[in-house]
Amino acid sequence: MTEPVFERIALIGLGLIGSSLARAIRRNSSVRSIAGCAQSDVTRRRVVELGLVDSIHADPAACVAGADLVMLCTPLGTYPEIGAAIVPALHPGAVVSDAGSVKACVIRDLGPLMPEGVHLIPGHPVAGTERSGPDAGFAELFDRRWCILTPPPGANAEAVRRVAELWRRAGMKVEIMEPLHHDLVLAITSHLPHLIAYNIVSTAAHHESVTKSEVFKYAAGGFRDFTRIAASDPIMWRDIFLNNREAVLEMLGRFSEDLAALQRAIRWGDGQALEDLFRRTRDIRRGVIDAGQA
Amino acid sequence: MTEPVFERIALIGLGLIGSSLARAIRRNSSVRSIAGCAQSDVTRRRVVELGLVDSIHADPAACVAGADLVMLCTPLGTYPEIGAAIVPALHPGAVVSDAGSVKACVIRDLGPLMPEGVHLIPGHPVAGTERSGPDAGFAELFDRRWCILTPPPGANAEAVRRVAELWRRAGMKVEIMEPLHHDLVLAITSHLPHLIAYNIVSTAAHHESVTKSEVFKYAAGGFRDFTRIAASDPIMWRDIFLNNREAVLEMLGRFSEDLAALQRAIRWGDGQALEDLFRRTRDIRRGVIDAGQA
Repeated sequence: MTEPVFERIALIGLGLIGSSLARAIRRNSSVRSIAGCAQSDVTRRRVVELGLVDSIHADPAACVAGADLVMLCTPLGTYPEIGAAIVPALHPGAVVSDAGSVKACVIRDLGPLMPEGVHLIPGHPVAGTERSGPDAGFAELFDRRWCILTPPPGANAEAVRRVAELWRRAGMKVEIMEPLHHDLVLAITSHLPHLIAYNIVSTAAHHESVTKSEVFKYAAGGFRDFTRIAASDPIMWRDIFLNNREAVLEMLGRFSEDLAALQRAIRWGDGQALEDLFRRTRDIRRGVIDAGQA
Repeated sequence: MTEPVFERIALIGLGLIGSSLARAIRRNSSVRSIAGCAQSDVTRRRVVELGLVDSIHADPAACVAGADLVMLCTPLGTYPEIGAAIVPALHPGAVVSDAGSVKACVIRDLGPLMPEGVHLIPGHPVAGTERSGPDAGFAELFDRRWCILTPPPGANAEAVRRVAELWRRAGMKVEIMEPLHHDLVLAITSHLPHLIAYNIVSTAAHHESVTKSEVFKYAAGGFRDFTRIAASDPIMWRDIFLNNREAVLEMLGRFSEDLAALQRAIRWGDGQALEDLFRRTRDIRRGVIDAGQA
């Protein structure tokens, strides 16, 4: 049996990601004990029933007391308030990390609050499904996926190593990245795809001569994959777009330009342009398959 | 054992759809014998190896000789040429149908060519995967999916009934629709989603500060689903966009308007607008699940 990486984790938020991490920790013994924190009564009762935590708290400060790792698995918009609440209870040498999908905003919101001797190591396990809540989690969610850590300049190397080891034990490959570069990469590989999916599903639902029932029935032609993505947690995604505005708008600008060119090719019947583009995108699919991320 | 619906089917094109139909027919005995037609040597050899056909032809006219059902499963752009080639060999009372994703163009391209006593019953089995070729097919592809038939005004009712029965035996539910309405419904549930997927994959592949390797590695954040859709057959999709131009451009116009509103909400930090939209799209997902098409 390998030694635990941390003694006690304070898991703030026990939805899809938090509860999956709790399950992975139970499986791999990377942390000796799990203190959980959830806002809702229902979630607190459920994670106890599921045996995912050793103690459960409604109050973030009570949860982090005695923890050597605090992991935020809540929507990004909650960070300032949770950060302010836990600061008095953080013990010296503790590591504060998170699983949020935008990283520069974490350093902006939590960085200035951190007491001397507490190490902020933001992270992003790039994995997920469209489901939410503690019952949606599963230990294998992270297997063979990438986790990106974005330590601020001068971050404690041992703290980075331990957070990386936590995710490796959960099955992930770990990469270190600049926070702003992370936010740009994720804007195109995750945030823009979600935005587009939300948009197309909304467009489809509001047409005066195509009924919703028709949209549902014939969804197997491609639409259903978009509805799956567009079923992701609304609050979590609201906060992602609010906190990665510049990068998302930049990618959206490029997307719209490219779409205008494609629209023009359709209008003018330029079959060669369409075929060339469709062949190139097929090669990208091969790249994703070869990278083991299909 | 139920009686066959047709004696001899001429299956023109043995890719994903054609070979899946051949496999379904082998399983359900809805047609007594299968004559296959494929342009490429490799495909012809392969479908014989797979035991999918009773006879194999390079020449469409030779394939349709003696057939009481001709089923085109080739890209829409091939229809005029194949139509002209098979007309002299069609036997009176034969039914000509197809599996193409646009329907008004089939009536436009094939309708005028049909000899007296030959029944044109265009159809669209709304099912598929991103894979192509005879090895990609499987008998269960059509199970519980919808097939839309778009018979022209005054079409022979018995011919419609028999084509519907063929698809029902393959596991499909069958609906009759006006061709132009079909093309509008599919523009939003299938053609626009594919166009958007092709476009976003292309946008992602051309950024000066995000490498292709990064796009591949972090595809699990949502992008990978788009790469799957954008791996669909380039020629088939080129022909769909060229032949459903008006409906696709109309849907694309609505999509772009909606996207501009979403872009504005992000730029101005309108969290309420984002959250409201993301909640509504989640309900659409439930509709697709309830319709059994997830």
